[in-house]
Amino acid sequence: MNQPIYLDHNATTPVHPDVLDQMLPWLRDHFGNPSSSHCHGRAAAQAVLTARESVAALIGATPAEIVFTGCATESSNLALLGVAQALRGPRHLVVSAVEHPAVMAPAAWLREQGWSLTVVDVDRFGRVDPLDLEKALRPDTALVSVMHANNEVGTVQPVEQIARLTHSRGIVLHTDAAQTVGKVSVDVDTLGVDLLSIAGHKFGAPKGVGALYVRNGTPITPILHGAGQERSLRPGTENVPLIVALGAAARLVQQALPGLADTLLQRRDQLHRLLADAIPGLQLNGHPEHRLPNTAHLSFPGVSGRALLQEAAEVAASLGSACHSASDAVSGVLAAMQVDAARAAGSVRLSVGSATTSDDVTRAADALVQAWRRLVA
Amino acid sequence: MNQPIYLDHNATTPVHPDVLDQMLPWLRDHFGNPSSSHCHGRAAAQAVLTARESVAALIGATPAEIVFTGCATESSNLALLGVAQALRGPRHLVVSAVEHPAVMAPAAWLREQGWSLTVVDVDRFGRVDPLDLEKALRPDTALVSVMHANNEVGTVQPVEQIARLTHSRGIVLHTDAAQTVGKVSVDVDTLGVDLLSIAGHKFGAPKGVGALYVRNGTPITPILHGAGQERSLRPGTENVPLIVALGAAARLVQQALPGLADTLLQRRDQLHRLLADAIPGLQLNGHPEHRLPNTAHLSFPGVSGRALLQEAAEVAASLGSACHSASDAVSGVLAAMQVDAARAAGSVRLSVGSATTSDDVTRAADALVQAWRRLVA
Repeated sequence: MNQPIYLDHNATTPVHPDVLDQMLPWLRDHFGNPSSSHCHGRAAAQAVLTARESVAALIGATPAEIVFTGCATESSNLALLGVAQALRGPRHLVVSAVEHPAVMAPAAWLREQGWSLTVVDVDRFGRVDPLDLEKALRPDTALVSVMHANNEVGTVQPVEQIARLTHSRGIVLHTDAAQTVGKVSVDVDTLGVDLLSIAGHKFGAPKGVGALYVRNGTPITPILHGAGQERSLRPGTENVPLIVALGAAARLVQQALPGLADTLLQRRDQLHRLLADAIPGLQLNGHPEHRLPNTAHLSFPGVSGRALLQEAAEVAASLGSACHSASDAVSGVLAAMQVDAARAAGSVRLSVGSATTSDDVTRAADALVQAWRRLVA
Repeated sequence: MNQPIYLDHNATTPVHPDVLDQMLPWLRDHFGNPSSSHCHGRAAAQAVLTARESVAALIGATPAEIVFTGCATESSNLALLGVAQALRGPRHLVVSAVEHPAVMAPAAWLREQGWSLTVVDVDRFGRVDPLDLEKALRPDTALVSVMHANNEVGTVQPVEQIARLTHSRGIVLHTDAAQTVGKVSVDVDTLGVDLLSIAGHKFGAPKGVGALYVRNGTPITPILHGAGQERSLRPGTENVPLIVALGAAARLVQQALPGLADTLLQRRDQLHRLLADAIPGLQLNGHPEHRLPNTAHLSFPGVSGRALLQEAAEVAASLGSACHSASDAVSGVLAAMQVDAARAAGSVRLSVGSATTSDDVTRAADALVQAWRRLVA
């Protein structure tokens, strides 16, 4: 059998060949420590600067507002814990019910440290109602974290409207944009956020590098302590090759957008249509419109998602987030959307990528339909 | 001019070509998320496991005792802050006066959080006297962190003797082994440590990956919060290509040792001898015997180290640690050794690597001697 058709781009993406080409010299030839004064060091420092400019340009930020990290989980931890530390003394924090563990776990940790935590519900499409969020705000609310788009069902949150609520009250707003950067246009000023988490491996850079956008003036302290790298917000010798890769991926995506978003949308809708035409009762989870262009989270009737993916060996996809692949419990995201147990059990996340072809989609749909028919027969 | 001769291996090392070869498939072809259940994910999970076994084998640990991180700074932060959190409630912490900022900074941060901190002095060779360390221990001492070898002067600390003191008292012992792993044999049981920090880029792996050895049973909690990767001690999608690289570097080093240590020692002593023969009054900083085999931290009479390195453009080296390259202040390590200001100002750290040839050493010594002569003329 050939390699299975990869429809799990929300878990991780292949490294883009051009990104690899641009990174390789920094693995092969240029190995300096950016903190060294000699030529090896200076070249590395310049490469990091160029990458910083490219990542900043992709999201409408200034280079000084970009902090490179080891992954988006670290970015979101730095955002929540770093702001909490800077503000000193427990306050009130608001998150949505569908946050990734990278936000939900540090939020829970802050609660253990004495912070108040409000988790705002979502509707059946997985979307936060800004009115609900407004009701959750209190005089002591210091921080709100609502993801830009959900990793499982792809629902895009009304971050711009939420920003208007937080800014008028002097509340710091963080968004986990791990799933949107690289798929749709993301602009920090349009969104109005103070902090934004970026995951390199979700858009063609390798795993092992992320970034946090920190708007100038945002109160934040480091959560790791060491030498003064990254304007003292993230110590440790800079991860030069992967930072170069993140910069290269940012430039590629900036050139490819918005055509890229349209292509993803076409492939995804082609896939959804082929499946819906063949499978009566197929249901979409997530918002029909406010949704990532590459994500179709679908409930197949009469089967379990796990059995379907095992039967459709020609397709590589996940049940929900990759982080939970080993668990049979209903995903917290689907539970928050009040998806019933049978529908949740039959669900599969299909996420296309920039290299997914129309032929891939046709073959994947065929494999899934055949597998479903065998299972319900 | 050719590329300068690289004598800054304590700052960072080139990626070993074999390491790059073993890593490349994980950048080019195999891109799965280790948490995904499909074949892409399973292959990545297996690669991470193999790397974990190799890193464990290099230091005499079991695979389950290895936690992969983004850098050694993160490893040491996890060690100090993770143990402190697990113990709950401020206690007493002891570190040496010559720790890297990766340890000194989190120790200072713990002091801000209410911990007592004792910084134990070193002798004029930069070495902790175990008797001094013993005197610093108190009934409420919970944690001791003494580096295995110093990054600037290369002095190796009596970690084994310190371990006997801490273990008999139930105190957790951490050592920052960023400079020893890959240069000399390191065995966690021989050392008797509970926690040990590893930096991939100091021995042929790329920047952007490190590890923390955590002895079974050591009290520790995560400092970043998210999904359950790395036995819930370090969340975030695993940095598969760089973890594979760290494993490959560990295997290479394990094969090369102890011959590698002898080779480093020969090159370093050749360099030192050539310089000492030509430069009257040249002084060695650091311990004459208990010292990294690759490190010669030398004070050149009558010149500043900065001027010397600028004049000797054929050589790439650092004044002290790369982290401090931009500062003209006397290094904290030399200050702790009570090195006088003139001697400190004239000092340069020369650190050879596995690929440094005898010819490199001859040419570098010649360049440094000629530069010194021009400056003192």
